Amino acid sequence: MNTYKNMLIAETIADVRAQVREWKAAGLTVGLVPTMGYLHEGHTSLVDAAAAQCDKVVASVFVNPTQFGPGEDLEAYPRDFDRDCGLLEEHGCSLVFHPSVEEMYAPDAATYVEILDDMPKQLCGKTRPIHFRGVCTVVSKLFNIVTPDKAFFGQKDAQQLVVIRRMVRDMSYGIEIVGCPIIREEDGLAKSSRNTYLNAEERQAALVLSRSIALAKKLIADGNRNAEVVLTAMRALIEEEPLAKIDYVSAVDGYNLQPVEGLEPGTLVAMAVYIGKTRLIDNFIVE
Amino acid sequence: MNTYKNMLIAETIADVRAQVREWKAAGLTVGLVPTMGYLHEGHTSLVDAAAAQCDKVVASVFVNPTQFGPGEDLEAYPRDFDRDCGLLEEHGCSLVFHPSVEEMYAPDAATYVEILDDMPKQLCGKTRPIHFRGVCTVVSKLFNIVTPDKAFFGQKDAQQLVVIRRMVRDMSYGIEIVGCPIIREEDGLAKSSRNTYLNAEERQAALVLSRSIALAKKLIADGNRNAEVVLTAMRALIEEEPLAKIDYVSAVDGYNLQPVEGLEPGTLVAMAVYIGKTRLIDNFIVE
Repeated sequence: MNTYKNMLIAETIADVRAQVREWKAAGLTVGLVPTMGYLHEGHTSLVDAAAAQCDKVVASVFVNPTQFGPGEDLEAYPRDFDRDCGLLEEHGCSLVFHPSVEEMYAPDAATYVEILDDMPKQLCGKTRPIHFRGVCTVVSKLFNIVTPDKAFFGQKDAQQLVVIRRMVRDMSYGIEIVGCPIIREEDGLAKSSRNTYLNAEERQAALVLSRSIALAKKLIADGNRNAEVVLTAMRALIEEEPLAKIDYVSAVDGYNLQPVEGLEPGTLVAMAVYIGKTRLIDNFIVE
Repeated sequence: MNTYKNMLIAETIADVRAQVREWKAAGLTVGLVPTMGYLHEGHTSLVDAAAAQCDKVVASVFVNPTQFGPGEDLEAYPRDFDRDCGLLEEHGCSLVFHPSVEEMYAPDAATYVEILDDMPKQLCGKTRPIHFRGVCTVVSKLFNIVTPDKAFFGQKDAQQLVVIRRMVRDMSYGIEIVGCPIIREEDGLAKSSRNTYLNAEERQAALVLSRSIALAKKLIADGNRNAEVVLTAMRALIEEEPLAKIDYVSAVDGYNLQPVEGLEPGTLVAMAVYIGKTRLIDNFIVE
């Protein structure tokens, strides 16, 4: 294995297994932070949480092809592994797993983990029908390779977090899933690797997502509990922005992702909005 | 946890996890033998192999509903847990996991592990379209609960063994799959829990399966390498038995289960034959 300062770099499944086996034999706990790389403070906050809760932190950097649909941004997805290594090491990551596509998927690989109710078809699943099957599959593989005690995911990808919790329960994984808060730029934009796609004008326009959340929170604080009233106000605000095109703005049950009429504590209010050609997501949970 | 003599009996996932954690902390290896109970010498040979190769043996006894299709024998499937406990303990099993359906599947459980190429649709999959999805799902769950070093499966369920090896590879499980030979009655009938369904006349008729295998082996030993010639002879022999009705008699590649024309070392010759209402399977691998 290569190293970057104090951090190990593993490119093979066998190397990860051997290292984790050694740590477990020494009685150490392991936290997993799965990422697609091009890391930002959202990712490093997951590494921080893992380092605080586990003896050793494994981060994966892998742009997983099975979660991208035809016409999505698999090839364009930003990559900078050297920079990622610097950030991971700085935040206390013990090992970064950086496999090739060939290491993760045999040419005839055909096994998938999929939730066969309509949870993965809600929200982002409406326009990304194979996305969560790919996510469940690659996360299961990472669980099986790393066998962590805990795994850390951002609340930014709200549907992903709900889907993974369900998958972990249904598949009886003995792994604690830790959800971590959304990290935002100072002006409110949720951190995302895809923010790099935005030009200056789009970067400014992208603030409609977080501004619509601020509006919704104010309406709810003022006593509005009707989902359609609040969602309509959010959509109107977003539609004022010429560069924005709504994919969805929805209020759903935070456990099963079914649409709700009333905004209760635990309701997930989530959106996907195109800013130019860039699809951004954001969300909040009603308190 | 209850015990039977020297063996632990766990009915909950949590109890299995806690016990396995203790064993692993002590540096012990764990072998898993998944069964649906009503054990015979085929199963106990798996326990023997596991006890020979691992420090601790976990057997599961669970009639898994997700691998039975509509109209199949889920309710009728024979059960005798007390007798199973006696056999397991006698063969050196350390812990038997005997969960309820409710312990294994939440009411809204919907996550499945499935091989999405045509491997599960060959052979038994032609008439049992959801069977191998259920098998992959429950075996994955057992892997995640028990986290064994090795898992033991019988060659009797040849397609299951091939499917599980593929699933383990695709899903990156760090578990060695050990296939164990078919165990037969003295007269040649492959041991099966479903043999209990046969009346005396059917029991005699069921010998056509192993007799057709003996015929095939003789034809191959005599130099016949054309699959259709050998399969035709096997089918003709089986069709002479009035109580027998062929589901399939096939020769397939032992790795991907695609039909083959020539019988090569590693070719799987497999069959499913109804004897009365009882569906029996048998197979051999060309040497």
